[in-house]
Amino acid sequence: MRKAVWVDEVYQGIVRTSFKLKRRLFKGKSSFQTVEVVETTGHGRLLLIDGMTMVSERDEFVYHEMIAHPALFLHPKPRRVLVIGGGDGGTVREVLKHRSVERCVLVEIDGLVVESSRRYIPQTAAALSDKRAHVLIEDGVKFVAETEEHFDVVIVDSTEPFGPAKELFGPSFYKNVKRILSEDGIVVSQAGSPFYEISTIKNLFRITNKIFPVVEVCLFNNLTYPGGLWAFTFATKGLHPVKDFRPARILTAKMRLRWYNAGIHAAAFALPNFLKAAIGR
Amino acid sequence: MRKAVWVDEVYQGIVRTSFKLKRRLFKGKSSFQTVEVVETTGHGRLLLIDGMTMVSERDEFVYHEMIAHPALFLHPKPRRVLVIGGGDGGTVREVLKHRSVERCVLVEIDGLVVESSRRYIPQTAAALSDKRAHVLIEDGVKFVAETEEHFDVVIVDSTEPFGPAKELFGPSFYKNVKRILSEDGIVVSQAGSPFYEISTIKNLFRITNKIFPVVEVCLFNNLTYPGGLWAFTFATKGLHPVKDFRPARILTAKMRLRWYNAGIHAAAFALPNFLKAAIGR
Repeated sequence: MRKAVWVDEVYQGIVRTSFKLKRRLFKGKSSFQTVEVVETTGHGRLLLIDGMTMVSERDEFVYHEMIAHPALFLHPKPRRVLVIGGGDGGTVREVLKHRSVERCVLVEIDGLVVESSRRYIPQTAAALSDKRAHVLIEDGVKFVAETEEHFDVVIVDSTEPFGPAKELFGPSFYKNVKRILSEDGIVVSQAGSPFYEISTIKNLFRITNKIFPVVEVCLFNNLTYPGGLWAFTFATKGLHPVKDFRPARILTAKMRLRWYNAGIHAAAFALPNFLKAAIGR
Repeated sequence: MRKAVWVDEVYQGIVRTSFKLKRRLFKGKSSFQTVEVVETTGHGRLLLIDGMTMVSERDEFVYHEMIAHPALFLHPKPRRVLVIGGGDGGTVREVLKHRSVERCVLVEIDGLVVESSRRYIPQTAAALSDKRAHVLIEDGVKFVAETEEHFDVVIVDSTEPFGPAKELFGPSFYKNVKRILSEDGIVVSQAGSPFYEISTIKNLFRITNKIFPVVEVCLFNNLTYPGGLWAFTFATKGLHPVKDFRPARILTAKMRLRWYNAGIHAAAFALPNFLKAAIGR
């Protein structure tokens, strides 16, 4: 028997996650980062950026349902949605399941992420061809600083806070996000691992908490991210993600969701003691 | 620089998790399995059985708080508790935080697990020296078939359903558990990964559901188990884990818990759609 070949991701130098490689489909280098697509045995296709797994076909539904639906079901009528990052298209796919959404703008800094996803991961990227989706290849920080358009929901579907994503974790970015959010506006942001990088969550919570009246942290699972438990910050101009949530809307929406439901919505905002202590709750 | 050396766990042939090795402390073979203790960089000491990570010092608090406290805070006054498996002692440690508990019997089939944990992982095993803890090295299946003692809570802290743990996943074992449970009795059982082995959860749910009037599934996180999201079945003689739960008791208990609280208790029983469908909920 041939020796198994693995796609490895080393995280913080202390843990390594490997997926069984079937074949390598694509590897390219943009001016920002290295983008790879591989096919695995057991997890479908994987999108990697600088060696970190971003998307696996097997479990991406969890991440993408959880980054989109808590905000889109909380907002009374989301019509215009902005996604920053997320060039694979999975977040846009979930956003567009909401029939109220008229326009979803995706601002991805790296065209190579969009191109390689369109070519190799149609499971997520097909949504980018929807007529309500508008893909812009540019810097999300610059976009929110300059746009005159307003959005009901902003989703920051970014990589970790270094490299091209670094400024997405800073206060001036969030001041601009607040400026372009409509009255009941919500911004959801990828915030890292509570186990391995609690300082990322603390910083993002502290920054958004100075700018928005309501900020909560929401947990989600991801098989293919180290430790399996990750977090979003969830900041709004007034709506509370649990107290103002109307579960009945989910039942009438008739979407085929594999993960998200009303119970999961409320459960995601329940935080363990150590995380509550870290954010002063 | 020296090449990093990793402790590898290959799971289902498709995913491999590796922890950075500092040094190997112990490796022994009992008549049941191979038991190892290693020291890592970043995750403290690990206990491995047949190459599978059972305990890491860094995150074992999550697993052990979640296997013990939902049942022990639901039961109105747990006095006698039986733990089957769990020879590392972490579950017993959490059980004994409840002052109502007068006696905690641990029935571990493999003396080598207890010995190596006592010697190398005092963080979990120190609890086994408590005067309320009674350690028996024998087969848990045989113990529940023969004992005349009754218990308020039974915790099945087992490995996966093969090797020495196989019969712990069968109906005759659960019939005996029901027989030895007192009136408000509860049995919590390690049930595997919803992502990777949903059939284990389905089988255990189906079996316990024929024997107990109330059965629910409870989710928990574990950094060092593949996929990071795992499940317990939670079966009772009548108490419902959410509807009959009195959160006030947690506040008065004054335990130093790092993970578990009232919000986490309720959240753990919220299941994603695909898992609800699998168990017919």
